[in-house]
Amino acid sequence: MSEPTEQIPPAEDKGPSKSALKKAAKEAEKKKKAEERAAKLAEEAKKREESEVDVAAGLYGPLPLNQSQSRPKRERVQISTLSSRAGQNVLLRARVHTSRAQGNKMVFLNLRQRTDSVQALILAGEKVSKQMLKWAASLADESIVLVEGSVVQTTEPIKSASVPDVEIHVSQIHLISGLDGRLPFTVEDANRPENDNDSAEVQTKRVLLDTRLNNRVIDLRTQTSQAVFRLQSGIGDLFREYLSQHGFIEIHSPKLQGAATESGASVFKVNYFKGDAFLAQSPQLAKQMAIAADFERVYEIGPVFRAEDSNTHRHMTEFIGLDLEMSIEEHYHEVMEMLDGMLKNIFKGLRDRYKKEIEVVQQQFPADDFKWREGPEGTLVLTFHQAVDILVEDGVPREDLDDFSTENEKRLGRLIKAKYDTDYYIIDKFPMALRPFYTMPDPNDPTLSNSYDFFMRGEEILSGAQRIHDPQLLCEKMRSKGVNPDSMKPYVDAFRMGCPPHGGGGIGLERVLMLFLKLNNIRRASLFPRDPKRLEP
Amino acid sequence: MSEPTEQIPPAEDKGPSKSALKKAAKEAEKKKKAEERAAKLAEEAKKREESEVDVAAGLYGPLPLNQSQSRPKRERVQISTLSSRAGQNVLLRARVHTSRAQGNKMVFLNLRQRTDSVQALILAGEKVSKQMLKWAASLADESIVLVEGSVVQTTEPIKSASVPDVEIHVSQIHLISGLDGRLPFTVEDANRPENDNDSAEVQTKRVLLDTRLNNRVIDLRTQTSQAVFRLQSGIGDLFREYLSQHGFIEIHSPKLQGAATESGASVFKVNYFKGDAFLAQSPQLAKQMAIAADFERVYEIGPVFRAEDSNTHRHMTEFIGLDLEMSIEEHYHEVMEMLDGMLKNIFKGLRDRYKKEIEVVQQQFPADDFKWREGPEGTLVLTFHQAVDILVEDGVPREDLDDFSTENEKRLGRLIKAKYDTDYYIIDKFPMALRPFYTMPDPNDPTLSNSYDFFMRGEEILSGAQRIHDPQLLCEKMRSKGVNPDSMKPYVDAFRMGCPPHGGGGIGLERVLMLFLKLNNIRRASLFPRDPKRLEP
Repeated sequence: MSEPTEQIPPAEDKGPSKSALKKAAKEAEKKKKAEERAAKLAEEAKKREESEVDVAAGLYGPLPLNQSQSRPKRERVQISTLSSRAGQNVLLRARVHTSRAQGNKMVFLNLRQRTDSVQALILAGEKVSKQMLKWAASLADESIVLVEGSVVQTTEPIKSASVPDVEIHVSQIHLISGLDGRLPFTVEDANRPENDNDSAEVQTKRVLLDTRLNNRVIDLRTQTSQAVFRLQSGIGDLFREYLSQHGFIEIHSPKLQGAATESGASVFKVNYFKGDAFLAQSPQLAKQMAIAADFERVYEIGPVFRAEDSNTHRHMTEFIGLDLEMSIEEHYHEVMEMLDGMLKNIFKGLRDRYKKEIEVVQQQFPADDFKWREGPEGTLVLTFHQAVDILVEDGVPREDLDDFSTENEKRLGRLIKAKYDTDYYIIDKFPMALRPFYTMPDPNDPTLSNSYDFFMRGEEILSGAQRIHDPQLLCEKMRSKGVNPDSMKPYVDAFRMGCPPHGGGGIGLERVLMLFLKLNNIRRASLFPRDPKRLEP
Repeated sequence: MSEPTEQIPPAEDKGPSKSALKKAAKEAEKKKKAEERAAKLAEEAKKREESEVDVAAGLYGPLPLNQSQSRPKRERVQISTLSSRAGQNVLLRARVHTSRAQGNKMVFLNLRQRTDSVQALILAGEKVSKQMLKWAASLADESIVLVEGSVVQTTEPIKSASVPDVEIHVSQIHLISGLDGRLPFTVEDANRPENDNDSAEVQTKRVLLDTRLNNRVIDLRTQTSQAVFRLQSGIGDLFREYLSQHGFIEIHSPKLQGAATESGASVFKVNYFKGDAFLAQSPQLAKQMAIAADFERVYEIGPVFRAEDSNTHRHMTEFIGLDLEMSIEEHYHEVMEMLDGMLKNIFKGLRDRYKKEIEVVQQQFPADDFKWREGPEGTLVLTFHQAVDILVEDGVPREDLDDFSTENEKRLGRLIKAKYDTDYYIIDKFPMALRPFYTMPDPNDPTLSNSYDFFMRGEEILSGAQRIHDPQLLCEKMRSKGVNPDSMKPYVDAFRMGCPPHGGGGIGLERVLMLFLKLNNIRRASLFPRDPKRLEP
C-alpha cells in the first residue's frame, strides 16, 4: 500500500496560514524525491533480475498451439504405470489437479490422468530458476501440462495421490492448454463423498447436481465420473459378450418412424421434409420384425426417446436401451432365463473386472455391494400375485395393488432383501391389463400375461414378455387397447407372412448403472443427460 | 366350371314355339337328375374317405397357437449341424422354402433356417397317410413347421440345399405359423443373382429394390440378406474389439440437442414439450466434449440424422455412425494411423471370420474380393494435391478440382486401383475451405488443414481431422464460417477449461458394408432404410 503523493490539509474556517503552506510544499518536495529514488532503485533491481541469466530458460513456459508441427515420437507414460518406473526419467501429459508453492524454494503439484494421480515436485536448484518456480506456482488448476522428470520412491506414502509410492522430480514443465476464465467449481470439491453422515462443513462444500450438470465437462473429470463411465462402457461389453456367445447378432433399427407407434401420447414429433416423422419409443416393432425376418436372435443398443414430462430421479427423455428379442422353441421362460443369465453375467463381470472403479465410486457414493443369488438355487422369481401377497402381509391394502407404485416397488425391494438377501429378482405373470397390446396372454388365465419385470434394489430395470405372433389375435388386442391396426400396417403385415413364437425384453442402461452403484439419480449415469428441462450441454 | 342349372333360350322376335319349350324343359329335367346322382356319388365317396382310419392322425396338422402351454424341453436342432447327425432322429423348426408333391406318393420340402437349407421327404407308407401327404403338399411357402424325422445320407449331393449330403425322412410335421395372404414375391426370386450378364429370363424374375423395401421382412429372409446383416454385426464387433484393445471406452451421447449445431441447414427439428430440439447430425460436439472431460479415447456407435434431400445410391437420412475421438500427444497422424489400423482389422476380420457369408453374398452380387495393402509398405496415403495431380494427368481439367465430385472420386478410385492395386486408401491434407470450422489448420499453410478422408472402391467412407482445441482460434473460425459462437456456448466453454490436442473420425457403417460387398445401393446394407421418401417399414 503506497501513500498518496500529495497530502491536502483539512480545510479550515480561515484557510491555511502562509507558513503552513510553505511547510507542506517542502514536505511534498522531499517526498517526491524519495519516491523518485525508490522507483529508480526498483527499476535497477528489475533490470538486474532481467539481465540475470534464467538457468531454466526453455525448460518451462507455454508451448505453441499444437497444430502437429512435428512428431519426435518420444514416449509419454501413464501415471498408473509410474510405481514400476522408479529411477526412470519420464515424459507425461497430465492435468494440474492442484498446485501449491512452499516458500520460494519448492512447488508441489498434484498431477491427474483420469482416475490416477501422482505428486510432482519442483525444487529450486541448479537447473530450476526462481522464474521457473514462480511460473509453475502460478499454473491454474485444470491446466494441461507436459512434464519431464525423474521418478523417485517416496519415504512415506502420499495420501493425496492414487499412486502413493513414487513422486516426480520435475526437470521440465510446459503448458499444453491453459484456462480461459474461472472454474465453476473445483474437481476436488466435485469429488467429495455424498454421505448423509458427513459434517456440515463437508456438506456445504458439495457441488449441487444442477451446477454439475450445467458444467458437465468439469464434473465428468472427477475420479468418480471417470469410473462411472468406464463401468457404463463395461456393461455394454458384457451385454454383447454374453449374447454373442448365445447366437445373437446386433441390429440397428431406425429411430425415425412414419407413425406414432406403440402409444401415441409419449412420442416426439419430427419435422420431416414436408411431412412428419416420430422418434421411436423403443426398437420394439423393428426387433419383432427382425424375428419375422428369420434373424432368430437379435439385440440392439441404442437411444430410445420418451416424450413424458416426468421429472423424477429415474426418468430421462432420452436413454440407452439394451434390447433383445429371440424366437421361442417351447416356452417364454427360455427368454426370461436368457435375460437372467445375461444380467448375472453383467453383475459378475463388473465385480470381477472393475473392482478399482467400483471402489472409486463407493468413496463418493457409499453403498453396500450389490447382491444377487449366484448359487444353484437360481434367481428369485415371484409371480405378480405372490409379490402382492408379500406387500399385503406387510400391511399394504390389497385394493392399492392393482399396479405397483414406485413406493410399493421400493417397499417390496426392502422386504425381499430382508427375507431373501438379494438385491435382484424377477416378477413374472403380470396382469394383462398392465401390459402393452403385443403381450401374449397366459394360456390358462386370460387376465394374466406371459410377461415379466426385473428389479434391482427395488426399482424396475427391465420389462419383457412373450409377444403375440398371430396377426388375428394381435389385431384383436390392438383394437381392445384402442389402437387401429391399419395405423401399424407394416408391423402387422410382418406376422401375416409367418412368424415364429418369440419374446424379449428391454433394459435401461443408465438404470442398471445407477442401481448397481447406488448413484441415487439417473443423470449421474448419463454422459449428457436429457430431461424435460435439460437439452444442454 | 359347372353349367347353369336352367338354360333360358335366346329371345326371338315372335317368341319360342311350344314344342321347343317342351324339349328344353325335358332336357333340363334330365340334366338335373344326372347332377343329383353325381352329387350323391361324390358324397358317398367323401364319407368313405372320412370313415377310413387316418393312420397318421396326430402326426401332422396345425399346432395350437403357442402361448407357452408346456415345456417338454425336447432338443431342437439346427440345419447347419445335420451333416454330422446321419442316422439320428431329430426335431427341428424351419421355414418351408418350397414344397412339391411327386404323384401322390411323395412330397419334397426344402426347409430353411437363416442361410442354411436341407431337403425333407415325406413318403407314403405305413405311418404316412394320403391325408398327411395331401396336407404337407398344400403347405404354403414360408410357413413355419415343426418337423420330426430321421437324418439319412444322400446318394447324390442335393444341389438345391446348403446341406447337400443328408436329407430328412419326415415322420411328423406340424404347422407352427402359417400365412395369412399371398407373398409379394418368393424368397427364391429375391435371392437370384444380380448379374448384368444374366439372361433376359433371369433378369425379368428379379425383384425390384423398391418392391423389396416395401416388403422388407420377406426380403430380409433371403440367404443374402441373412449374410449381409451377420456381416454388419461383425463390423461393429471388430470396430469395438480393436478400439477396446487400444484403451478406448464406449460412450453414448444425446441425439436430442438444444441448438441446430454444426450446420443448421441439414438438421431435423423436433417438437420438444413447449419448445424445439434438434437431432444430432453426428456425435462430433459430444465426443470432443468427452475429450475435454478427460476420457482420452472414446468411441460411439449410434444413429446420425441428416435432413438432406439427397436421393442417391449412397445417402440415407438416418444411418449408423462409427465415431471415435482421441487425444493427441504429438501429431494428428497418431489418429489417422489408429483409424487405419482399426479399418484394416475390420477388413481382415471379415475375410477371416465370415468367409461363408461373403461367399453367399457374392452369389447374388458378384464382385472381386476387396483388396487392401497388408504388407509392411502400409496403406496408400496421398495428399489432396497429389490426388488432384493424378486426376489432371488423366485429363480432368484442374479448375474442376477445387473439390472432388462423386464422379471424380470414382475415377480416382479406378486410377488408384490400376496403379496401386488397392481398393482402400487415404487422402490427407484437405483444403481448409472444404472442412468444417472445428478443423485444425495446417501449421505451415493456412489454406490447408490437418484432415483426411478414407476411401473404399472410390467412395468416401470416413472423414476426420485434428480439431481446434483452443477456444480463441475456434471462435475465430466459427465466425469466418458464419457460425455465432454464442449459439454453441456449452461446446466452446468446454475448451475454455483446458483441453488436450485431439482428433478423430466418423465412419458410415452401411457404407463400409455396401462397398466391401459391392452391394451397389446403401439401402441393402440397412435393416429398415430411411431416405427422404421412405419412413416405413
